[in-house]
Amino acid sequence: MKSSAFSTSPSTAPDLLDRVPATTVAAVTTGRRSTELRTLPVPPVGAEEGLLHVDAAGVCGSDAVSYDKEGLPERIMGHENVGRIAALGEVAARRWGVSVGDRVAVEEYLPCGHCHFCRSSEFRLCLGSDPSHDPDALRYGTTELARGSGLWGGFSQYLRLHERTVLHRVPENVSDHHAAMALPIANGYEWAFREGGAGPGRTVVVIGPGQQGLGCVLGAHAAGAPVVVSVGLRRDAHRLHVARRLGATHTVVADETDPVEEIARITGGKLADVVIDTAAGTAAVVNQAIAMARKRGTLVSAVSAGVPLDGVDFGLLSRKYLTVRGVRGHSYEAVEHALALMASGRYPLEEMASLTVGLDQVHDAILATAGATGHDVIHATVLPWYGTAAG
Amino acid sequence: MKSSAFSTSPSTAPDLLDRVPATTVAAVTTGRRSTELRTLPVPPVGAEEGLLHVDAAGVCGSDAVSYDKEGLPERIMGHENVGRIAALGEVAARRWGVSVGDRVAVEEYLPCGHCHFCRSSEFRLCLGSDPSHDPDALRYGTTELARGSGLWGGFSQYLRLHERTVLHRVPENVSDHHAAMALPIANGYEWAFREGGAGPGRTVVVIGPGQQGLGCVLGAHAAGAPVVVSVGLRRDAHRLHVARRLGATHTVVADETDPVEEIARITGGKLADVVIDTAAGTAAVVNQAIAMARKRGTLVSAVSAGVPLDGVDFGLLSRKYLTVRGVRGHSYEAVEHALALMASGRYPLEEMASLTVGLDQVHDAILATAGATGHDVIHATVLPWYGTAAG
Amino acid sequence: MKSSAFSTSPSTAPDLLDRVPATTVAAVTTGRRSTELRTLPVPPVGAEEGLLHVDAAGVCGSDAVSYDKEGLPERIMGHENVGRIAALGEVAARRWGVSVGDRVAVEEYLPCGHCHFCRSSEFRLCLGSDPSHDPDALRYGTTELARGSGLWGGFSQYLRLHERTVLHRVPENVSDHHAAMALPIANGYEWAFREGGAGPGRTVVVIGPGQQGLGCVLGAHAAGAPVVVSVGLRRDAHRLHVARRLGATHTVVADETDPVEEIARITGGKLADVVIDTAAGTAAVVNQAIAMARKRGTLVSAVSAGVPLDGVDFGLLSRKYLTVRGVRGHSYEAVEHALALMASGRYPLEEMASLTVGLDQVHDAILATAGATGHDVIHATVLPWYGTAAG
Amino acid sequence: MKSSAFSTSPSTAPDLLDRVPATTVAAVTTGRRSTELRTLPVPPVGAEEGLLHVDAAGVCGSDAVSYDKEGLPERIMGHENVGRIAALGEVAARRWGVSVGDRVAVEEYLPCGHCHFCRSSEFRLCLGSDPSHDPDALRYGTTELARGSGLWGGFSQYLRLHERTVLHRVPENVSDHHAAMALPIANGYEWAFREGGAGPGRTVVVIGPGQQGLGCVLGAHAAGAPVVVSVGLRRDAHRLHVARRLGATHTVVADETDPVEEIARITGGKLADVVIDTAAGTAAVVNQAIAMARKRGTLVSAVSAGVPLDGVDFGLLSRKYLTVRGVRGHSYEAVEHALALMASGRYPLEEMASLTVGLDQVHDAILATAGATGHDVIHATVLPWYGTAAG
Repeated sequence: MKSSAFSTSPSTAPDLLDRVPATTVAAVTTGRRSTELRTLPVPPVGAEEGLLHVDAAGVCGSDAVSYDKEGLPERIMGHENVGRIAALGEVAARRWGVSVGDRVAVEEYLPCGHCHFCRSSEFRLCLGSDPSHDPDALRYGTTELARGSGLWGGFSQYLRLHERTVLHRVPENVSDHHAAMALPIANGYEWAFREGGAGPGRTVVVIGPGQQGLGCVLGAHAAGAPVVVSVGLRRDAHRLHVARRLGATHTVVADETDPVEEIARITGGKLADVVIDTAAGTAAVVNQAIAMARKRGTLVSAVSAGVPLDGVDFGLLSRKYLTVRGVRGHSYEAVEHALALMASGRYPLEEMASLTVGLDQVHDAILATAGATGHDVIHATVLPWYGTAAG
Repeated sequence: MKSSAFSTSPSTAPDLLDRVPATTVAAVTTGRRSTELRTLPVPPVGAEEGLLHVDAAGVCGSDAVSYDKEGLPERIMGHENVGRIAALGEVAARRWGVSVGDRVAVEEYLPCGHCHFCRSSEFRLCLGSDPSHDPDALRYGTTELARGSGLWGGFSQYLRLHERTVLHRVPENVSDHHAAMALPIANGYEWAFREGGAGPGRTVVVIGPGQQGLGCVLGAHAAGAPVVVSVGLRRDAHRLHVARRLGATHTVVADETDPVEEIARITGGKLADVVIDTAAGTAAVVNQAIAMARKRGTLVSAVSAGVPLDGVDFGLLSRKYLTVRGVRGHSYEAVEHALALMASGRYPLEEMASLTVGLDQVHDAILATAGATGHDVIHATVLPWYGTAAG
Repeated sequence: MKSSAFSTSPSTAPDLLDRVPATTVAAVTTGRRSTELRTLPVPPVGAEEGLLHVDAAGVCGSDAVSYDKEGLPERIMGHENVGRIAALGEVAARRWGVSVGDRVAVEEYLPCGHCHFCRSSEFRLCLGSDPSHDPDALRYGTTELARGSGLWGGFSQYLRLHERTVLHRVPENVSDHHAAMALPIANGYEWAFREGGAGPGRTVVVIGPGQQGLGCVLGAHAAGAPVVVSVGLRRDAHRLHVARRLGATHTVVADETDPVEEIARITGGKLADVVIDTAAGTAAVVNQAIAMARKRGTLVSAVSAGVPLDGVDFGLLSRKYLTVRGVRGHSYEAVEHALALMASGRYPLEEMASLTVGLDQVHDAILATAGATGHDVIHATVLPWYGTAAG
Repeated sequence: MKSSAFSTSPSTAPDLLDRVPATTVAAVTTGRRSTELRTLPVPPVGAEEGLLHVDAAGVCGSDAVSYDKEGLPERIMGHENVGRIAALGEVAARRWGVSVGDRVAVEEYLPCGHCHFCRSSEFRLCLGSDPSHDPDALRYGTTELARGSGLWGGFSQYLRLHERTVLHRVPENVSDHHAAMALPIANGYEWAFREGGAGPGRTVVVIGPGQQGLGCVLGAHAAGAPVVVSVGLRRDAHRLHVARRLGATHTVVADETDPVEEIARITGGKLADVVIDTAAGTAAVVNQAIAMARKRGTLVSAVSAGVPLDGVDFGLLSRKYLTVRGVRGHSYEAVEHALALMASGRYPLEEMASLTVGLDQVHDAILATAGATGHDVIHATVLPWYGTAAG
């Protein structure tokens, strides 16, 4: 595994662009905890499509979860993708407002474009792009290799840009490493500011110091919250340190103290205006989150528990007049904001980018993200051209 | 038990006002399921206080719950109170902007007036008026007889108006019976419109056809919701009929069909924009409410479960991007609106007022509200002067 | 000019669909107050495009304004268009989610699809579809005949559906006449409810009883506003009658009384929560609108004054803490709502549809809408197949 | 005139508290530009009242305006008051939740407490406290000497605390000088954050670098706005420097460049999300503010023009879909936030506090605030005990 030190992203000769390569190297996930490098054909680019020369692809916490599942089909993972447009159909150029060579970040969603949600800014809710709703739905990083060209994930030198693709321009001065974190940082903006209402005068507690939680710490700080508390476990010492660097004014180690009492102490008994729960989803943590919120406070829940929870203090929502905002993913605006924030250079995001690998180490990077390797990796980045001669 | 037919409220001679009586008759709750009539002294009215000649006092569903509890102190119940100001201290007159003889509805809350919540419109959240937070807190209908004069409840000919009292003027053409329902109707306005966002183009489902649920049906209809579904049980046939009269466009009998499938059918698969859960608070109903809401929908939860719930689909809040609004009680504006709505005469509220009793039948009225008598009583009203000669 | 009585829309044989005709008859506006019938070639339908068999096209108030201007290019007017899809390219079918034969209403906007506004639900603000911002921008009903096929307006048997087209499905039971009013009704929903916050407990004043103003009256009523005041002039007697049929509880004749005093009288001195100004845009009316609003009220301004106004009480906005919402057009959701409202059959919209003509009388219909013919026409509808044999 | 260097506020012996003095020295404004020191009797403190030992009183820009008016009655000015409670009636202690010796900031409003506005958090809108609505209304700093005790302003050693007084606790570590700026800083929070929606990702322009404008700069920065532009004139060089210290990222000198073009340049053509106009209220500046806002942007207008404006581009509000928020004053929450912000020590507020005087120089301080003395005074503070032996 290569070191996490930032190396300059290998340059790509401009003349590689607008020339569709015959093949691409991709890291294909073939089953549970199994990935292999393959050389796959790159199909011609239709009028409505494009091809991305992937410069960097982040490893999401959800990748670690799905990588551990049995029974999923062969696929190229990677949905936090950034790169340059290598080829572009004529219709796509018009529809997307971009040109070959443009540097872009790619939404993982492939929205239908004409449903109620797509027409009202919530395209991430588009049922037509939700595999749990429609088996034919497409999404970057999860669609199977057997569908079309198969080039649906960013752990590959090239990514097919489907006609439904949503793009963001990446500012010049945002590095590939940072841009690969645009989606978790966007989630932080979305959850802390837009959903949670973090702002001046408001105390924000963020449970869980993973990618999403740290994104929320940053988002709460950027929104002017004067008190931002990051809650983790004893093993998260480094992450809590990073949280402080990203704007946390306090950190709480939940397995060393009573975290609810700590929040009461920090706030002088007032409790928190906003509690964001990015933890794994047990009733115990949900109940702590509810207990940490002041009357009329807001609980932002990213709890992804796949099973019903036992022992939830649901009646307290009413007794405390709480608002719960179930969240997942981000709006278009949030990604734009995340990129602008990165361009501002205000935050040491490199502290989150703790591992950089080439395509040959995708397997290791996902396991490290899962915490299965003994390394504490917050956010890993795959550079598909890392170490290749052609770049 | 007298019939539920509306009789004219017995007139009170104006000269009874501004003359503090020496005594009042009150229905004192002495313990679990036990109430007795007593004659109690009326103390002098201090400069900051007042005395209410109670014309009507509604029986709330929560009265039925507390009436069944062991270990509560002696008290005069009744917190949905309407009447005329019989006496008024000089300071109170200035502070409340009212005069002797004015007809008013009384908030059950006695807010401190100077905390963060009181200064920002949410006086019902005032910790100083919340007995669960401060044992010295006062609230109409629950404060013990041993505190001060003891005249803290509306099941009495006279009610002491404490200096913290919040009043609403009652329009001339709103009858005592209707005014006694101002608080549940206000809850409906608050929960359906202000918290739930009921409005044109939005489908609203209300689970539970009790006072609060029917208030929500009315509130959703008044806010322009084109589809309002009232969900009850087989035994609620009459209540579902009343729901239709108050604005429900559909009713669902939850123990005869799968209510979630019914909502899917009614909405053509789109599910509900707003689901309001006023039912008793089991995980099964909570999960149905979650299942009935569309992606990005709102669940208004008045669930008062005093114990943790097992088997709650909490992770679905995130997967469906739901907003949950825990609710309890109402804002000042909501009561003003409820009274204006009553004055408009647009809704047959008398269909909710299904029982009228005098002070001697408070016990029966509370049990009937609890459903313990075999009668289906939606809302009972106590007329403290009913049958007395003096009026 | 034919009578305004509703005749059944002439049926179109299904086999006319999916067969691109060689030519279409269109009413071409050739200059100021000049329109002539022409037969124009229908180009082949590209993969990303479609062709609409226009069943009805409404005449907007703005048509009357532009019809009176010198120097505008030859064009087919008509931007309130409804019809059936006659032909459809393969890409367009996928992108729009429709099929040949589907009945649709067409947004006048042709948004770029990838700018900030398009990605955040405000596609009507898309700079790329705003002719005042971008001379190359397209919009139905205003784009010149010389651009491409020229078939950019609804006063024609066929309308070209450009790749950027935004469509709404029209429910079965909504007639062509009603559907042709979807846009003004949508404006009413947008301005009264979404921008103005009309709702239960709120008094709404609508200045101007034209299409937009009547749409706002309907929108305010549908949103549950208990008091809706329509303000017009003496000559608007019929329109004020229609306003009452659409939900106005009061009407005020502004040149017979002092309209501000009337609002004060109607509201018992409280003034209006929401004032919507749809009138022609003089400082006098703007100041009346400001004066009619209560402290902390909302003024929705559709004032389209092209010139600066003299004598505006601008400082009152601050002294009364008013919110002004500048409005123009509608959101996607608003049109969906308008169509659903029409399908509900709750409102006698036919009272607004006061003139029906064929293509040969487009000139008359626009002049009548401008009030230049002595007829009081609220909303005129052009039926391009009216009177033709083929239907 | 004493220097603006901060001297320690002279200590007041605790035993001076809870002992109502017989007399107080006050600076009485006797007419246009005329103030004299008088010794006035201090009346006994009634049960519902209190007495404030004034430690500091800010000079507001509006003081400069009213000081220049003819025909106003004799009065003690000063409505940005901070001090300690010297005496307190028994009822007031209960109602206000404070004790003798507590350090407090005093709202200038004396709200009735029972109207619609008072019950819904907007007590500053209370008609009963608005002298322009009710000639009997009271307000600190403007009520005439002839009313009651006359001690209605903070330019006095003691201020009478009327029964309607609204208080804020001042944190220990906030100096008197800072606390005396709580109201303008609160306005900045209210106007920039709560009304304007300043936040991460949003560009905010503040026109006018006076007390209110600088408060808005600070508020916008505290809310996370990444771009904050302060617009002033050539003569405002020092103020624009202070603006940068309080969070402005850019400054624009409006009489040296075209300020609208400057905003276009700074924002890369996108224009501003929020424009706050705190300038004197000419149509030219209003039109610049409108021109600086992007489509769908917000214009916060504190324009206090007492006369109608000629040449206002009112139609642009609609064409640009702007929202205008007329503002004046602040909410309770805003003052709490301002005090917390001061306690955080994050901002060098002392840069705004440019003049400190005793009671004998109130006249000079007001004229200096008006810019009539050749000194550029942003915010002046009167220390009523400055230089007195008794302290």
